Amino acid sequence: MSSTQQQINIKEMIEKDRPQWLKDYYQFLSFPSISSEPEFKKPLLDCADWLMDYLKKLKFNVELWQTSGHPTIFASNLEAGPNKPTLLIYNHYDVQPVDPLELWESEPFKPTEKNGQVYARGAQDNKGQCFYVIQALKYLIQQDGKLPINIKLCIEGEEEVGSHGLSGILKERKKELKADYLAIVDLGIKDMQSPALTLGIRGILTMDVEIIGSKTDLHSGTHGGIAKNPIHAMVELLATLRDNNGKIMIPGFYDEVKELSEEEKRDVTFHFDQKEYQDSTGIESVGGEKQFTPYERAWTRPTIEINGINGGYWGQGFKTVIPAKATAKISCRLVPDQEPAHIAKLVAEHLRKNSPAGVTINVQIRPGSGKAVRIKPTAKVVKAFAEAYQEVFNKPCEYILAGGSIPVVTELAEACGGEVLLMGLGLDSDQIHAPNEHFGIDRIEKGIQIMMKGIKKLEG
Amino acid sequence: MSSTQQQINIKEMIEKDRPQWLKDYYQFLSFPSISSEPEFKKPLLDCADWLMDYLKKLKFNVELWQTSGHPTIFASNLEAGPNKPTLLIYNHYDVQPVDPLELWESEPFKPTEKNGQVYARGAQDNKGQCFYVIQALKYLIQQDGKLPINIKLCIEGEEEVGSHGLSGILKERKKELKADYLAIVDLGIKDMQSPALTLGIRGILTMDVEIIGSKTDLHSGTHGGIAKNPIHAMVELLATLRDNNGKIMIPGFYDEVKELSEEEKRDVTFHFDQKEYQDSTGIESVGGEKQFTPYERAWTRPTIEINGINGGYWGQGFKTVIPAKATAKISCRLVPDQEPAHIAKLVAEHLRKNSPAGVTINVQIRPGSGKAVRIKPTAKVVKAFAEAYQEVFNKPCEYILAGGSIPVVTELAEACGGEVLLMGLGLDSDQIHAPNEHFGIDRIEKGIQIMMKGIKKLEG
Repeated sequence: MSSTQQQINIKEMIEKDRPQWLKDYYQFLSFPSISSEPEFKKPLLDCADWLMDYLKKLKFNVELWQTSGHPTIFASNLEAGPNKPTLLIYNHYDVQPVDPLELWESEPFKPTEKNGQVYARGAQDNKGQCFYVIQALKYLIQQDGKLPINIKLCIEGEEEVGSHGLSGILKERKKELKADYLAIVDLGIKDMQSPALTLGIRGILTMDVEIIGSKTDLHSGTHGGIAKNPIHAMVELLATLRDNNGKIMIPGFYDEVKELSEEEKRDVTFHFDQKEYQDSTGIESVGGEKQFTPYERAWTRPTIEINGINGGYWGQGFKTVIPAKATAKISCRLVPDQEPAHIAKLVAEHLRKNSPAGVTINVQIRPGSGKAVRIKPTAKVVKAFAEAYQEVFNKPCEYILAGGSIPVVTELAEACGGEVLLMGLGLDSDQIHAPNEHFGIDRIEKGIQIMMKGIKKLEG
Repeated sequence: MSSTQQQINIKEMIEKDRPQWLKDYYQFLSFPSISSEPEFKKPLLDCADWLMDYLKKLKFNVELWQTSGHPTIFASNLEAGPNKPTLLIYNHYDVQPVDPLELWESEPFKPTEKNGQVYARGAQDNKGQCFYVIQALKYLIQQDGKLPINIKLCIEGEEEVGSHGLSGILKERKKELKADYLAIVDLGIKDMQSPALTLGIRGILTMDVEIIGSKTDLHSGTHGGIAKNPIHAMVELLATLRDNNGKIMIPGFYDEVKELSEEEKRDVTFHFDQKEYQDSTGIESVGGEKQFTPYERAWTRPTIEINGINGGYWGQGFKTVIPAKATAKISCRLVPDQEPAHIAKLVAEHLRKNSPAGVTINVQIRPGSGKAVRIKPTAKVVKAFAEAYQEVFNKPCEYILAGGSIPVVTELAEACGGEVLLMGLGLDSDQIHAPNEHFGIDRIEKGIQIMMKGIKKLEG
């Protein structure tokens, strides 16, 4: 049978089986495995149980690793034997919160198909991408009775809150995690016409800021002009973070930023379609530092973002109050060679130093930060999967970078010791971390094929 | 019987009756008559019904005036006859919302006594102050069979949302509202050792600001550096409202501000006790414009306050999101001769003009603004009640100003045509508009006596 024929057969088989695996996919998506909110601990653990049962049926040896937070699923199938290479694949089974719930057009944990897209929290990030990995393993076993190489799966339950649980056990699990290659399957492509692998992700750090004024809320008539308003203090403070050109004004913030090498600039496709972006998001690409292009800003430059702000009365009507406090949630995306702990310290120092008189500031740096990652297109695992993308999409594979972060990658790569691959089939328009998250059924099918091909190529 | 003896008798009678009127007071407080939230419409109307029944029993002729919003109770007892003067007394039966509910130590609509203070939403503002007015009328009728002068009561249901309903019917109700004197019983004193009448209140205007970015929330990794964050836009915009010295930077904002005359400066007691303020609120008095003293800032200078701000994720945990929008609620306190509509226009123009690129701004000026009011201590009604305060407190009555606003006062004074009195027994520490609002039982007793004495003095 020719390779093309075999490809057609795999494709047909996947399509034929669609009703069956779609049912499994929907079940996976139905668990509200929100890692950031303690009240979802039970469904999160139920989701892990379901996934473990699924992997056991695929002849995987499955363990649940307890951590300081939510547990990590570790599964291995080493039937290929010691003469074959080992690939460690990373996914996560936890998802983001769903609010604002009122903006969802279907229930976030009742997967709903519309125009070939499945709508649900986690549909893409990361259950969808985890799901095609597992289906690929299923079909590989189905085809040849066993996997062509040794496969280890590390599926964690805390990616959306910073992976500090997994991070804490990586050193003691070094032996289990050892592999020749590490595939992080949580990334994306630019569009369905542009197969791409990712050569870098940004690092991240997060913090909570609280500005406290009076003991309780005060009447803005009686106290307006006497009491310092914590919202004003917050607004004045946060306005000092960036100048009018989007440059971050925290002393030392950019000191360790490493510019892209000429080689990296040549490898990466920076083309940005403003019209497409505007159609998809409704906005122009005018955030960040003015002197850079949009993808330079999102991929190669660090950011500071206020992810949430809250103070006083914001319901219907009006309340003439000077609130007792105002809060904000702030994150930074980091690039090589910024150290998260160092940058967090600089940001916290800046906030504390510039907090106006008459209020008290508390800055709490959150656990779960991560360094930025960059990889080379010459790595064997990158080449193998670039070929797989090219064959499935029937187009040359591009190289891109990503603005997002998977905090645990650096440490996981160290524990694994192998070459890193950053891959995935997400699209910017998937609405991950937002209402109406969705993932294309066509991408699940392509994902299965890519994983099957890439794994086979690593055998040789 | 001497005046002193009579005073003792009234005092004793009020104390003796305490259990009975306290029961009525608690019932009045038990209605959650929150005017800003549509879901409380029914208890608000129930509260009006209860109050109307109460006044009917005191031989008042009672009407419920429908307005564009919540209705106003109008009650009159004109038995004194056309040769006696008429006093129109203004109160309101609506209250502020109660959130943050978790900071209340007792349920806001289950009045609870502790150390002589009654804790409930509205305990002071304005049900407590309305209640001693009504009790005074009850005792006056009880003493002499009828009231010494003609009394009209205007008790509205929308003071906390700007009185636009009452404001809209004042012209057509001019005949009913006509009176020689108008007493606004919604003010306060500095402390229990300082009986005082108020010679001025500030005006107010309120607005909603919304800054819209993308169609939906965006992932702060993928879009951070590309998308303009509406929270950043809001923060940058709101930081332009004031300079480092607390001066409001909106062009033209101060143009119509009239400085106090030498006479006004002499009449008013500006003494401010920083230690007492700090003990009561937990903060220093460092809000507002630096070159003025605290009470100058709160009483004679206009302010701009952000009363609420909201955007993105502020729950437990963290969500790395660039939100689709951010909102803020802004109010200004105004002084003579600032015109609310003009100042609102200046603020809205400033916000629209300074809104950063890449986002859309909506500014909505809310109905219910009001001009500042100043009155002279030489007015007959002011003199009569100053004497009443002095007799009940056994101390000379001071003159103060107030930072708060009762938007409808100017228009109501015009409709009434009489001399205005701004009075009350509120304290800054009463926590009005805040959790754990409370009012002293001793002040209800003093309030009854002051109202009885003041009304009698107007007869002669």
